[in-house]
Amino acid sequence: MGPHPAVAAIRLAVRRVLHDVLTDHTTGHEPLVLVACSGGADSMALASALAFEARKLPLRAGGITVDHGLQDGSATRAAEVAGRMTALGLAPAEAVTVTVGREGGPEAAARDARYAALDAAAERHGATAILLGHTRDDQAETVLLGLARGSGIRSLSGMAAVSGTSGRYRRPFLQLDRQTVRKACIAQELAVWDDPHNSDPAYTRSRLRHEGLPALEKALGKGVVEALARTAQLSRDDADALDTWAADAETAVRDEAGALECAKLHGLPPAVRRRVLRRAVIAEGAPAGSLFARHIEEVDRLITGWRGQGAINLPGRVEARRQGGRLVIRQG
Amino acid sequence: MGPHPAVAAIRLAVRRVLHDVLTDHTTGHEPLVLVACSGGADSMALASALAFEARKLPLRAGGITVDHGLQDGSATRAAEVAGRMTALGLAPAEAVTVTVGREGGPEAAARDARYAALDAAAERHGATAILLGHTRDDQAETVLLGLARGSGIRSLSGMAAVSGTSGRYRRPFLQLDRQTVRKACIAQELAVWDDPHNSDPAYTRSRLRHEGLPALEKALGKGVVEALARTAQLSRDDADALDTWAADAETAVRDEAGALECAKLHGLPPAVRRRVLRRAVIAEGAPAGSLFARHIEEVDRLITGWRGQGAINLPGRVEARRQGGRLVIRQG
Repeated sequence: MGPHPAVAAIRLAVRRVLHDVLTDHTTGHEPLVLVACSGGADSMALASALAFEARKLPLRAGGITVDHGLQDGSATRAAEVAGRMTALGLAPAEAVTVTVGREGGPEAAARDARYAALDAAAERHGATAILLGHTRDDQAETVLLGLARGSGIRSLSGMAAVSGTSGRYRRPFLQLDRQTVRKACIAQELAVWDDPHNSDPAYTRSRLRHEGLPALEKALGKGVVEALARTAQLSRDDADALDTWAADAETAVRDEAGALECAKLHGLPPAVRRRVLRRAVIAEGAPAGSLFARHIEEVDRLITGWRGQGAINLPGRVEARRQGGRLVIRQG
Repeated sequence: MGPHPAVAAIRLAVRRVLHDVLTDHTTGHEPLVLVACSGGADSMALASALAFEARKLPLRAGGITVDHGLQDGSATRAAEVAGRMTALGLAPAEAVTVTVGREGGPEAAARDARYAALDAAAERHGATAILLGHTRDDQAETVLLGLARGSGIRSLSGMAAVSGTSGRYRRPFLQLDRQTVRKACIAQELAVWDDPHNSDPAYTRSRLRHEGLPALEKALGKGVVEALARTAQLSRDDADALDTWAADAETAVRDEAGALECAKLHGLPPAVRRRVLRRAVIAEGAPAGSLFARHIEEVDRLITGWRGQGAINLPGRVEARRQGGRLVIRQG
C-alpha cells in the first residue's frame, strides 16, 4: 500500500524541487538542503518530505528553526522543534535565536530577522538551498496584501517559487493547498505547533486568513485562492517583461550625454515610461521603498502635462526638473 | 454660498468630462450628451450634474433610462425616472424597454441588453457621448470580480474612463467614492430609487459589495477601495503596453511564409510569448471568451517543453501542433 494521497502529494512536490536543486548544482560534493521549520504544520510537513526524499538522492538534508524570542518559552519550543527535526533524520537540526527589530512593523521586522538568520545558517553550513513551507493559501494572502498597497502588478506577484541570492530559497508547496499539507501531517502523525500569531487578529495576515479571505470566498466562490495564486504567476511574468522593456527603453531615450530626452520619453507607452522614470529616480539615489506611484506620476507630468512647472522634490533629496527638452534628475 | 462640497465634487467631475467631449468634438453643431440613468443614487447624481453643467456649455444634455422588464412595475418605474430627468431639464428624456436574454448569466445578460439599448439610443439621437455613473467603489468591485477569474492583468483593469465605439462611453465618477455621490443626492434632495438587485445576495456583485469588500476592508484597512481602483489603472496601462509589444512581436516571429518560428518564440519573455500565442489562436478562429490560460499554457509547452507531444485541441475546433520547427495553428 502506498502512502496517503496527501503524503504522496507533498513528497512529489519536494522531489521535483530537489531534482531542480541537483540539476543546478555543479560542484562535486553532495549538496546540503535545509528546511526552514517553525514547527507549524506546513513546515513540519515539508521537513518530513525532505527527510524522506533526501534518503533516495545524492544530497544531505538538514533543518533550521528560528527562535524569534517574542513569546515566553520560545527557546524551549525551538529546542523541541530542533529535536523533532533530528527525529525525522535531518542533520544538522539547529535552533537559532534572533533579535527582532521594529522597522516596518512587527510582521516585517520578524520576517527580516528570520531571513537574515536563515541566510547566515546557509552560509555557515554551506547549504545550497533552503526550503520554505509557503502554500498556495499563503500565496493568495500575499497577493491580497499586495493588492491593498495598490502599487501595481509587481506587488501582486506574491512569492516566487525560487528567490534569494542565486536562487537559494525554494517553495515546493506554492501550488499545494494548505488543507493537503495539513492532511499530510495528520496522516503521518506529525506533532505540530500552532503559532498563536497565526490566529492573532492584531496581525493583518491573520485577519486576512480568518476573516477577509473566507468572506471573499463566500462572495466570489471557492476558486478564489487558486485564482489569486494564478494571478501572482501571471503578474510576475508581466512585471518581468515590462522591467526588461523599461531597461532597454531607458538606454534608448538617453542622448549621447546620457540625458533623458523628453520627446522620446513621450513616445513610450505610459506603463513603460513610468518604469523608466522610476529606474532613473532610483539610480540618482531615491530609496525604492519610499518612492510611490504618486511621485512618479508627478514626474511623468513633466513629460505629458508640461506647462512650465518647477522642480519636483522626491524622496532621498532627489529632484526632477525639465530643462531644454531634457529631464534632469539629480540628488540635491 | 456655494454648493455642498459633495455637489461641487460631482459637478467638477462632470465638467471635466464635458470639456473633454467638447475638445474631441469637431463638427459644427452642438453635441448631445446623454446620461444613462437607472434612477439609483449614482446615476441620478450624474443626471443632476450633467443638467447643471450643460446649461453653461455649448452642448445639449439628455438622458436614457433602460427598463429591463425583470420586475413587476418596472415600466412605471422607468417612466417615473424619465419624468425626473425631464424635471432636471434633460431633453430628450427617454425610457427604453429591452428584452434580457440568458447568455453569460443574469448579470451579463442584463448588461449586454442595456448597452445595446444605449448604443441604439445614441445612434437614434445622434449623441456624441453617454455618461455612466460608475464610482470608484464600483471599480473596486469590478477589480475583485476580475481577480476571481484569475486570468491575468487585463481582467484586473476594471472599467475604462473612456470606452466603447469612438470613446462613446464616459465615466465621470470613476475616481469619486460612492459616499460623496450619495451625499450629493441628499444635499440636492434628489428622489432616488434603490435597485433591489443591488442588495440581493443572489448576485455576485451584491455579495461582494455587502460582505466581501467590507470584510476585506476590516482585514486590510480603509484604503482598500482606493488601492483596488489604482490597481485597475496601473493594470490597464500595463496590459495595453504588453498588447502593443505582443502585436509587434507576432510580426517578428513569423517567417516569410507567415509561419510562427518556434526558436524565435522561445526567445520572447513568457508574458509576451503567451500573448502572441493567444493572438494567433484567436486569429485562426478560437472564440476569445472560451480560451483560458490553461489552453495557452498547453500551446506554450510546445515551445518551452517540447518532447514530441501531439496536436493540441483548442476551443472553436482550432488545433495547434509543432511541425519542423514551426508552430502550426489552424481550424479543423
